[in-house]
Amino acid sequence: MEIPDNNMYNYGNICTGGFSVKYGFGVDLGGTTVKIAFFDELGTMLSKWEIPTNTADDGCHILPDIAMSIHGYLRDNRIDRSSVIGVGIGVPGAVLPSGVVNKCINLGWGKFDITGEFSRLVGFPVKAGNDANVAALGEFWKGGGRNTHSMVMVTLGTGVGGGIVIDGKLLCGEHGAGAEIGHMVINRDETIRCNCGKYGCVEQYCSATGIVRVARKIMEDSPLDSPLRRIEALTCKDIFDCGKERDPLALEILDTVYRYMGEFLANVCIVADPEIVVIGGGVSKAGQILLDGIRPYFDRYIFHASNSIEFALATLGNDAGAYGAFKLVLDQK
Amino acid sequence: MEIPDNNMYNYGNICTGGFSVKYGFGVDLGGTTVKIAFFDELGTMLSKWEIPTNTADDGCHILPDIAMSIHGYLRDNRIDRSSVIGVGIGVPGAVLPSGVVNKCINLGWGKFDITGEFSRLVGFPVKAGNDANVAALGEFWKGGGRNTHSMVMVTLGTGVGGGIVIDGKLLCGEHGAGAEIGHMVINRDETIRCNCGKYGCVEQYCSATGIVRVARKIMEDSPLDSPLRRIEALTCKDIFDCGKERDPLALEILDTVYRYMGEFLANVCIVADPEIVVIGGGVSKAGQILLDGIRPYFDRYIFHASNSIEFALATLGNDAGAYGAFKLVLDQK
Repeated sequence: MEIPDNNMYNYGNICTGGFSVKYGFGVDLGGTTVKIAFFDELGTMLSKWEIPTNTADDGCHILPDIAMSIHGYLRDNRIDRSSVIGVGIGVPGAVLPSGVVNKCINLGWGKFDITGEFSRLVGFPVKAGNDANVAALGEFWKGGGRNTHSMVMVTLGTGVGGGIVIDGKLLCGEHGAGAEIGHMVINRDETIRCNCGKYGCVEQYCSATGIVRVARKIMEDSPLDSPLRRIEALTCKDIFDCGKERDPLALEILDTVYRYMGEFLANVCIVADPEIVVIGGGVSKAGQILLDGIRPYFDRYIFHASNSIEFALATLGNDAGAYGAFKLVLDQK
Repeated sequence: MEIPDNNMYNYGNICTGGFSVKYGFGVDLGGTTVKIAFFDELGTMLSKWEIPTNTADDGCHILPDIAMSIHGYLRDNRIDRSSVIGVGIGVPGAVLPSGVVNKCINLGWGKFDITGEFSRLVGFPVKAGNDANVAALGEFWKGGGRNTHSMVMVTLGTGVGGGIVIDGKLLCGEHGAGAEIGHMVINRDETIRCNCGKYGCVEQYCSATGIVRVARKIMEDSPLDSPLRRIEALTCKDIFDCGKERDPLALEILDTVYRYMGEFLANVCIVADPEIVVIGGGVSKAGQILLDGIRPYFDRYIFHASNSIEFALATLGNDAGAYGAFKLVLDQK
C-alpha cells in the first residue's frame, strides 16, 4: 500500500477564528482501483492517492485495506482524528437508503451493511452511495453542474451510468437504483441481450462499446467506403475522429447515436425537469461536438416547458467520485 | 356562487389540550369547475364544494371568485380567520419553483405570480402547484400511495398526467414540468402530432382517447370480427368491457396498450426507482385487470434491482387534487 509523501500535517491543527478546520475523506471504489482523497470541509481536495482493489476472497479485504490506508494517512501526516468528520464511499452497485449494499458483482460482494462495517473499521461516521450517483453529486457540487439547483448526469463509458440531483439532493431510489438510466429501454425490437439481462437498453447503443456495435451494424448495411473499414479493432474514438474529418459513414453512425442519446435524455428530462444535463465518461472526451450532435434530437423530443435545459460537459474526470463521496458526508452533518 | 349549507361552524373555536385546531383549504382548479375543500390540519376533509370556472376575460375572474367563495365559507360557518393556516391550489399548467404560473392555456392565463396575487385576495399564505403533481401528492398522502416513501403516479384520463414523490416531496421540476410523463416519447416513427406539438408521446397511446386511436388502427389492420366494430362512438370503456368478455380483438388492442404502458412506466421507474406506482384517471376505472395487464410488460422492461416496485390503483378519485393542494400548505409550515 502506497501512501504519498506530502506535507498535509501542516493543516491538522490550524484554527481559524476560533474554529478548528474539519476534514474528511472521499473514496471512489472501483473494480481494479480505489481512489481516496482528503478534503477540507469547504471541499478543497488537499491530497489524493490510489490503492489496488483486492477482490480475492469475495472482496473481504477491500474495506480493511481502505481503512488501513486512511489510518496510515492520518498517522503519517499527524492529523488529529477529532478533526475528521467522516468518510464517504461510492461503490459499484446498489446502496439501499438504509446504507446496505445490495450486491456488487464486480467486487464479489453480496448484501451487507457497508455503513456499519466500514464505520467500525475506520472509526468515523460513514456514508455510502452508488458510484454513478456519487460521481453525479461530485459534478453537481464542484464540476459541470455547479451553481445549479438540479441536474441530470449521464456517464458514457464502457457502460452508461446516471445520477440525478434534485434541489441539491441525490435521487438514490427506494432500491438504490435511482437514475439507472443506462437501462431504460430504447429499442423494444432488440434481439441481443444487454449485460443487465434485458433487451434494447440505452447502454447497448450509447456506451463506448454500444457505439461500436451501432457502427458495425451500419457498416454492414451501408455501401459507403470509409477509413473506418480499414481499422482492425474499431474504437469509439476512431468513429468520432473520422466524424471530425467529415467522413460520411462516420457521420451517419454518429447521427444515429446522437438520435438515441437525444431521445433518451429528453425522456429522462421529461421525468426530472432539471436545470442542466451534464455528460461525462470516456465518450464525452469527444467534447463540444457531442453536445452539438445531441442537442437537435433532444430539442425534438423534450417537452416544450423544459426546452431551456442546458447541456455541459463534466469537468472533474476521475475525481468526480471522490468529491461526491465526501459531499455525502457534508450533507449528512 | 353556491356555498353549501353545513354545520362546520361547530369546529371553528374548538380547543384540544390547550392548542387551537388549525384549518386550511385545498383548491383544485380545473378548466370547467373549481373544487374547494376545507380540512383540519390532520388532513380530515371537513367539507367540499364546487364553483364554476369563469374563463371569460383571460381568466381574470377565476382567483377573485375562489377567494370570495372561501371568504363566504368562513363567514357563514363563523370560522376564526386566525385558525386558517393557508390555501393550497393546483392549476392546469406549469408552476415554477418561485410560485409563478407559466401559462395555463385552458384558463387564458399567461405568466404571473399566482402565489402573491391569490394570497392578497384570500388574505392567507398560498402554495401553488401543477394539478397533476398536486393530485399525486394527495394520493401519496391519503390515497393509493399512503404509507410509502416514494411514488410514481400516472393519471390516465383524456390526457396522461404524472406526479412523482421522492422522500415525501414532490418532484416539481426546474421549469414546473417535473413528471410530465405523458409526453415521454414512446414511438419515434409516429406521424400524427400530439397536442403538445411533438410526435409519438405516451399520451397518444395510453390516454382514453389514445387507446381508442390504437384500437381504430388495429381494427383497420385486423381481419377479426368483434362487437367493437358495431359500436358507433367507440370509447375506451367499450374496449375494456369487450376485453372482460374475452373478445379476441379487444384483447389484442389491450395487449398493445398494456405493452406501451408497461414500457413507459418501467422507463419512469428506472429514473425514479420509487416504492410504488399508483394509477388513476378515468382509464383506471377498469380496475385490477389494468394492473394485471401492465405488470408482465413492466417486469420485462424494469431494471432488476427495482423489480419489487408495487402497483396500486388511486383511491381518492376527484378529491386527490384538493387533498394534495392542502398538503402543500402543511409541508410549507
